[in-house]
Amino acid sequence: MNVITTPALRQQVLDDLRRQLGPGAVLVGDDVPARNCNDWSPQAPRRPLAVVRPLDAAGVALTLKVCRSVGFPVVPQGGLTGLCGGATPEEGWVALSLERMSGIEEVDAASATMTVKAGTPLERVQDAADAAGFLFPLDLGSRGSCAIGGNLSTNAGGNRVIRYGMMRELVLGLEVVLPDGTIITNLNKLLKNNAGYDLKHLFIGSEGTLGIVTRVVLRLFPKPQCTMAALCKLADYDRVVALLAAARRGLGPLLSAFEVMWPDYWQVVTERAGVRSPVAPGDGLYVLVEAQGTDEAIDRPRFESWLEGLMEQELLVDAAVAQSLADIDAFWALRDACAEFPAVLGPHVSYDIGLAVGRMDDFARRCKAALEAAIPGCDSAYYGHIGDGNLHLVTWVPGLAAAAQPKPAMDAIIYGLVKELGGSISAEHGIGTLKKQWLGHARSEAEIALMRTLKAALDPSGLLNPGKVV
Amino acid sequence: MNVITTPALRQQVLDDLRRQLGPGAVLVGDDVPARNCNDWSPQAPRRPLAVVRPLDAAGVALTLKVCRSVGFPVVPQGGLTGLCGGATPEEGWVALSLERMSGIEEVDAASATMTVKAGTPLERVQDAADAAGFLFPLDLGSRGSCAIGGNLSTNAGGNRVIRYGMMRELVLGLEVVLPDGTIITNLNKLLKNNAGYDLKHLFIGSEGTLGIVTRVVLRLFPKPQCTMAALCKLADYDRVVALLAAARRGLGPLLSAFEVMWPDYWQVVTERAGVRSPVAPGDGLYVLVEAQGTDEAIDRPRFESWLEGLMEQELLVDAAVAQSLADIDAFWALRDACAEFPAVLGPHVSYDIGLAVGRMDDFARRCKAALEAAIPGCDSAYYGHIGDGNLHLVTWVPGLAAAAQPKPAMDAIIYGLVKELGGSISAEHGIGTLKKQWLGHARSEAEIALMRTLKAALDPSGLLNPGKVV
Repeated sequence: MNVITTPALRQQVLDDLRRQLGPGAVLVGDDVPARNCNDWSPQAPRRPLAVVRPLDAAGVALTLKVCRSVGFPVVPQGGLTGLCGGATPEEGWVALSLERMSGIEEVDAASATMTVKAGTPLERVQDAADAAGFLFPLDLGSRGSCAIGGNLSTNAGGNRVIRYGMMRELVLGLEVVLPDGTIITNLNKLLKNNAGYDLKHLFIGSEGTLGIVTRVVLRLFPKPQCTMAALCKLADYDRVVALLAAARRGLGPLLSAFEVMWPDYWQVVTERAGVRSPVAPGDGLYVLVEAQGTDEAIDRPRFESWLEGLMEQELLVDAAVAQSLADIDAFWALRDACAEFPAVLGPHVSYDIGLAVGRMDDFARRCKAALEAAIPGCDSAYYGHIGDGNLHLVTWVPGLAAAAQPKPAMDAIIYGLVKELGGSISAEHGIGTLKKQWLGHARSEAEIALMRTLKAALDPSGLLNPGKVV
Repeated sequence: MNVITTPALRQQVLDDLRRQLGPGAVLVGDDVPARNCNDWSPQAPRRPLAVVRPLDAAGVALTLKVCRSVGFPVVPQGGLTGLCGGATPEEGWVALSLERMSGIEEVDAASATMTVKAGTPLERVQDAADAAGFLFPLDLGSRGSCAIGGNLSTNAGGNRVIRYGMMRELVLGLEVVLPDGTIITNLNKLLKNNAGYDLKHLFIGSEGTLGIVTRVVLRLFPKPQCTMAALCKLADYDRVVALLAAARRGLGPLLSAFEVMWPDYWQVVTERAGVRSPVAPGDGLYVLVEAQGTDEAIDRPRFESWLEGLMEQELLVDAAVAQSLADIDAFWALRDACAEFPAVLGPHVSYDIGLAVGRMDDFARRCKAALEAAIPGCDSAYYGHIGDGNLHLVTWVPGLAAAAQPKPAMDAIIYGLVKELGGSISAEHGIGTLKKQWLGHARSEAEIALMRTLKAALDPSGLLNPGKVV
């Protein structure tokens, strides 16, 4: 490996790459777009040496080989909507953007699969599935911007994991370029395929540190024909756990969301953000239960009688059933109001943790008390995808600027409790650089050593997205 | 590494191990049980140097360290029901059996998980889930004998993959001992956990070549409250594909099995095995459709009206709907009659391949013709889990003994067609030793090289189940 240190030599290498990849493929200097200097995570942007935008796997392989030969670190970039710095470059790095590798290659209706290029925005995948009479169930707030390759590299989650699983469960095959430029093509469409190691799982959720995904075979699902939703109020968390069990039993595989909102979250959303509550005010925990069915005439009465049974058993303090799509939207507005927190709360810090379902409320109470005790004026609010073991929380000290929020002290309290309760420091957002120092709170030394063994085996020169995750 | 060559020194090492692991842990010579000399695959048994039966992960780690220090290859063994030689020892190897590591450690109802030791038989897991009010959906013919660790190591499938997924989708956490004796404990219960690489997927489906799984956290599901089934007859394969699409749309996530039987299979089962057909005789393809619901009063009429709609559309030539559990058993008897093939067909060869749904019938027709043309008198029959892309077939030349069946010629024709049609040489049984020579028909050189890179990274001394898979 020759490490290029002079500007003139660097320029020559990039000029050579531009000649081979064609016009528009290599951007340098002032041509580097601002968007390629950062992802959505809260950190200062950094301008890469160049942005390289190949058109296919061969172009990605060529870029990796050239960069490897001269010692340029490479960061893969999709829609750049990550929240942990996984796609952020450092100065002197090459940003390899998949933005020109976008499009649907095939819909195979018999296999219920879709083959897409990795740079395709999620929303375009959703729309193409819909047009073909199917559902692609992954859904995130950033659907218009995030790329399917980034969804795969971060193992994206979202609201309907309880029914359809994470991105990992939605991928059947992929094409990936290894750090040495080897192209691995396995566009498998089979649910069952035990011919040797299932290599795709190495690349799903490893945040672009082991290879660059260039094409993906996705699973498609039948379109639900109706959606039912209820907003429930319960007296305590034990009853929330009982409601989850009842939803699993009574709604079976139709259950598509189970979102819990703690009283502090509810207060922020209904009193400060002004979202209208469909249930009576007062203390309690709030749960949005959603089910998707195949026949409105059958599934709506079933949902309503299930809920009536729970009211008769006095499991619920109160409940509102959506009577229209507008009602469903209104219920989700309560849960989605967290997107308005920058305006409502001002500067705050967001967390995405994993905990066993039975430990959520214990965590929320202890965390709130510990933050209040250790950080004068610190407030916090709790909500999340409880059926998946995923709790979100936001913390803030009113009146402090973003840079002045005591994030290190908050991190220490929150991740300390996560460690004590055997949880995860990242349920769906990943590790990137921003959570790396806390990885040892969720994974053992032996696990982290094995991650490093894998990284060294696949990327011995350590030039693919170095310093991310491990 | 000292390679022990003299019998006296080998004996000393094993005596030391027996002292450390306790009485009953190390069996040698005539004490080696016959069952530990082979799995269920068709090959000659081989007696290992010793059978070691630790009680926990620490005992597994000690065994691996001792064997590594003296150069003994180690094969992990669970229920020994594999069909590809993955758990078969060679002479001079140590068989590390998990048979004394059996039992349910915990059922966590709130998280809907169960933590079990890896040597626990599948049926015991199913029964424990049932007793706790849940379903563990994996189900195989060998349920009474196979161990959950072996189900994990082979990524077992079975009949209800279309609804619940393979074993891979049913595992949330595991404890595994690496070839160097490092114990990795990640008994994760969360559906969402993106804190670093998801290491468990390395060990699922890698047939005990990368580590030995000692404990497993399994997902539990709500118990279905009712089961509906229909046996359908269709005029051609295009209609079978249309029926699958209609089942996905109309039954949604209730669809729990979609088993297709070709005319040659049907003829063997109804005419030679004498299983009663619930539909009229004559040419056609036969499909067993099963759905599981949450409420019999709602789901049974839904199933029946869905089927009536298909009859009105003339998609089906004929259909019988199960009116009782006995009827459901009778329908499954047609599909499960393949277990009687040794008695019905005499010596034959079984295959387990993966194909895109749209290519199944093309494969069946071409394969049958190619076998007949190349091998005088060769007959074959086709059936499988079509919704999962999994086709089974059996081939036989009537009157020839098992050893005289021209398996190499059959293999070449069948796996050649699999390669041409972009399928998999193993949908659910794995590779082991018996399918290893054909791995290149389903995976590229680059993929196999990456598998070898992983094997070398995790097992640099190459002593854990060497020569299996890659």
